[in-house]
Amino acid sequence: MAHGYIADKDDYLKRLRRIEGQVRGLQRMVDEELYCIDILTQVSAATKALQTVALGLLDDHLAHCVADAARAGGPEADAKVKEASAAIARLVRS
Amino acid sequence: MAHGYIADKDDYLKRLRRIEGQVRGLQRMVDEELYCIDILTQVSAATKALQTVALGLLDDHLAHCVADAARAGGPEADAKVKEASAAIARLVRS
Amino acid sequence: MAHGYIADKDDYLKRLRRIEGQVRGLQRMVDEELYCIDILTQVSAATKALQTVALGLLDDHLAHCVADAARAGGPEADAKVKEASAAIARLVRS
Amino acid sequence: MAHGYIADKDDYLKRLRRIEGQVRGLQRMVDEELYCIDILTQVSAATKALQTVALGLLDDHLAHCVADAARAGGPEADAKVKEASAAIARLVRS
Repeated sequence: MAHGYIADKDDYLKRLRRIEGQVRGLQRMVDEELYCIDILTQVSAATKALQTVALGLLDDHLAHCVADAARAGGPEADAKVKEASAAIARLVRS
Repeated sequence: MAHGYIADKDDYLKRLRRIEGQVRGLQRMVDEELYCIDILTQVSAATKALQTVALGLLDDHLAHCVADAARAGGPEADAKVKEASAAIARLVRS
Repeated sequence: MAHGYIADKDDYLKRLRRIEGQVRGLQRMVDEELYCIDILTQVSAATKALQTVALGLLDDHLAHCVADAARAGGPEADAKVKEASAAIARLVRS
Repeated sequence: MAHGYIADKDDYLKRLRRIEGQVRGLQRMVDEELYCIDILTQVSAATKALQTVALGLLDDHLAHCVADAARAGGPEADAKVKEASAAIARLVRS
């Protein structure tokens, strides 16, 4: 079964590769013992970039999987909403 | 039009009154110049309680408004998902 | 012992009274069954306002209690940093 | 000048390499078009791991740079607290 984010797959991969680069940059900063505050700024940037990926995936998921399940109806529709809500709660609390 | 949270309205009101009490408690703590760290602990508790209210409202909203719009179809269905995603983004970033 | 936020006490109290008003506004919105998304926007605003209070208190706490303890030295200095770090962790995770 | 986290440098590097692995895992999950919710769970885990690194760096920074500056006194002490508070605000809001 095709998932909703396929259309933007390349965009997600590009973002994730950039985040991987940021995390490698963090290793270099720690290894070279750069100033803590500068490292923290970079950690905040990587965290925000991960959140943007998550919010994009969630939007795609609501627009496709959750909406499809709502149209199909039945217990699966409720289960999809519960599952999405739990994922949102994890994001809000992380 | 009835909104999804009506069933739990009393529960939401009870939670919000408890949060109002927490915020009044914070005023008392500041006024009596209590220890900062204790005040911060109380601020974190009130923030978490607000988030729990938000996650509950969002779950109800997905299960009712967004699912109903998905079943009805058309541009309104997409608009409801976009609107919900924007609200989720505000929560994640707040 | 005087705590660091006393100078700005009126400002903190004013902010907290405004947040109390926002939380009462939320009760009215739920009671009148207004649109979920509008209620969520208001929850995000109250959450952000609480965070701003917390960040202000933390800044005052670092500038006064933690700095004073650092100058006094000894195990109390380390204890104050650990306590502040734990409060920061609660804020970041809430 | 030596920074406070040197003692734990290996631990930080190990954590950051694990996060890099999580981000590469995310690329694989997106590339193989796995289920959105599973990808979101992994994004939340990577975000939390980054926050733990940030909170550790911040604790080290307060215990060393900020405390040293407080002991030295003068405008530099205040500047260090302001800088740390700004970094905390970025973390809380990211």
